[in-house]
Amino acid sequence: MTEPLPQGTVIGILGGGQLGRMLSVAASRLGFRTHIFEPGANPPAGDVAHRVTTASYEDAEALRAFAETVDVITYEFENIPTSALDLLETLRPIRPDRRALAVSQDRLVEKAFLTDLGLQTAPYAAVDDAEDLAEALAEVGTPAILKTRRFGYDGKGQAVLRTPEDATEGLAAMAGAPAILEGFVNFTKEISVIGARGLDGSVACFDPGENVHREGILRTTTVPAQISDAQRTDAVLIAAQILNKLDYVGVMGVELFVTPTALIVNEIAPRVHNSGHWTQGGCAIDQFEQHIRAIVGWPLGDGARQSDVEMENLIGADMERLPALTRQPRTQIHLYGKTEVKPGRKMGHVNRIL
Amino acid sequence: MTEPLPQGTVIGILGGGQLGRMLSVAASRLGFRTHIFEPGANPPAGDVAHRVTTASYEDAEALRAFAETVDVITYEFENIPTSALDLLETLRPIRPDRRALAVSQDRLVEKAFLTDLGLQTAPYAAVDDAEDLAEALAEVGTPAILKTRRFGYDGKGQAVLRTPEDATEGLAAMAGAPAILEGFVNFTKEISVIGARGLDGSVACFDPGENVHREGILRTTTVPAQISDAQRTDAVLIAAQILNKLDYVGVMGVELFVTPTALIVNEIAPRVHNSGHWTQGGCAIDQFEQHIRAIVGWPLGDGARQSDVEMENLIGADMERLPALTRQPRTQIHLYGKTEVKPGRKMGHVNRIL
Repeated sequence: MTEPLPQGTVIGILGGGQLGRMLSVAASRLGFRTHIFEPGANPPAGDVAHRVTTASYEDAEALRAFAETVDVITYEFENIPTSALDLLETLRPIRPDRRALAVSQDRLVEKAFLTDLGLQTAPYAAVDDAEDLAEALAEVGTPAILKTRRFGYDGKGQAVLRTPEDATEGLAAMAGAPAILEGFVNFTKEISVIGARGLDGSVACFDPGENVHREGILRTTTVPAQISDAQRTDAVLIAAQILNKLDYVGVMGVELFVTPTALIVNEIAPRVHNSGHWTQGGCAIDQFEQHIRAIVGWPLGDGARQSDVEMENLIGADMERLPALTRQPRTQIHLYGKTEVKPGRKMGHVNRIL
Repeated sequence: MTEPLPQGTVIGILGGGQLGRMLSVAASRLGFRTHIFEPGANPPAGDVAHRVTTASYEDAEALRAFAETVDVITYEFENIPTSALDLLETLRPIRPDRRALAVSQDRLVEKAFLTDLGLQTAPYAAVDDAEDLAEALAEVGTPAILKTRRFGYDGKGQAVLRTPEDATEGLAAMAGAPAILEGFVNFTKEISVIGARGLDGSVACFDPGENVHREGILRTTTVPAQISDAQRTDAVLIAAQILNKLDYVGVMGVELFVTPTALIVNEIAPRVHNSGHWTQGGCAIDQFEQHIRAIVGWPLGDGARQSDVEMENLIGADMERLPALTRQPRTQIHLYGKTEVKPGRKMGHVNRIL
């Protein structure tokens, strides 16, 4: 596929949240249509999609019908049930493919993959039961974080163990799910690299952004990150190494802890990433369009940073600040159309052009 | 209305072409939904709208049902049949309102409006029949352009009269429709100002762009326009004067001829305008979002030019250049999803960040 796909080509997107919504908008800019598959009714992405299927990931009929209307399938989240992927990949190309999902759906597999690549991660150990946890605590030490191996996001399915005495309560929070104990990394800051790899194998990364989290949820990303030139180069090389190893196609988010002596890979997300939203205000081609370009076989676009940007998430009651935000200069507002405000819910974000 | 409308508010858009499409995307950025009303099947805007009604502007039932699902109505083209407007305006606010449409739907009314404001236009005269045309030619001289008073766009419904001998053929081209003869203006360049006026009466204009037309169709707009500071100021003041006189709400395109001694108003368009597409690549807030902000009662956004831009329309066979365009740095591609390429058809545009 070296010629751009024709106008009207349909891109199937699994997941109808804000990432699917912004992917859909980016697809439209390039003349493509989208078909959203989402179990929940009235998904945010449905407002800007050509078509929406509301069905469960267990509904093989619906999955098949969905696949038959699209030319290529992508997704906005990594926790897609295996059975759905098994079916879909027999019908249409899924980009990024199963390799990326296998690695990112399981924190233990992810850590092993990164370690095999020679990259540094937090110290970790597998935890299936109380005995494992005792051993893991002896090896990793405290404080540490116990996390379910699968299906975690935004701090959910996690328990902080400040001392070994927190073990029992922490394990209970896993509700029997296979888990991983991760040692704390004493980092000075957290950055992320949004990388992209095209169908032709070319790689392009956006400038690393500097992230601030609160209560496990990303609050701000600022570019450029305040890191050394060597760290900037290393961060991009790490992302490129991961992308190439997976024969990846699409955009990936790579979160890194910065310590005085190393860059430590926290986690990878095989999709557009909240910490890449700044690209909408800072680059000619943003992460959403970059992803669409990659999965349809276009050349990767020019993601060079043209402005410094601070991205701030609007979470829950932050929406009360909206009237004031609408009056701020150099401020791009992105809202997701969610009618119900809940604590911790991502309602939108703003990009401040610095 | 001083509080932003709630998330999920529905904006009705009359017309489903590329302007409606890009308005719909801008509405989604601010958390709003759109409902497109368009007689033609599979309109470009339908790919990114929450809902589409396919019906004629003569279908009162369909118009009523459409209006009942939306909170405010706007449009992407000025030639909306009067009967449709008569019905719709009893049901929901139409922004911009009838005053703007009355002026812009009729070239003769438009010229009289501008002249009354003290603005300069091309010399003109009304032409209903051969006798009028003879008088008009005596007054205006040749070369001149005979245009239907209503329903013209992109050079359609126009005839150039190089000498008085072209009168008969020119009049035939009007097919009996009321017309206007406009004298040629010996201009050095054509510019346009994309102005906006909020519900609160505030006015903001984007930087004037310099336009190049070929065969009656806009080819490129470049910002900044190569004009003097005084001309830049005057151009913006002219747009503001028009917006205020009409108590206008929304974005308007004002096309101006630049001569060594004056700025001459060519025409006004009560909507987002092709010559304002550069704002997508050059401003924090583009013309589409500015229009949405205005019609829902948000404060106008920051439209200051942050980059120099050349916008180029992709017309008909220009689409053959797409593979090369996808490889150009600093180039944003916007395609409209039209599957059939026709000569003269606007298929998309590119914004080159200079």
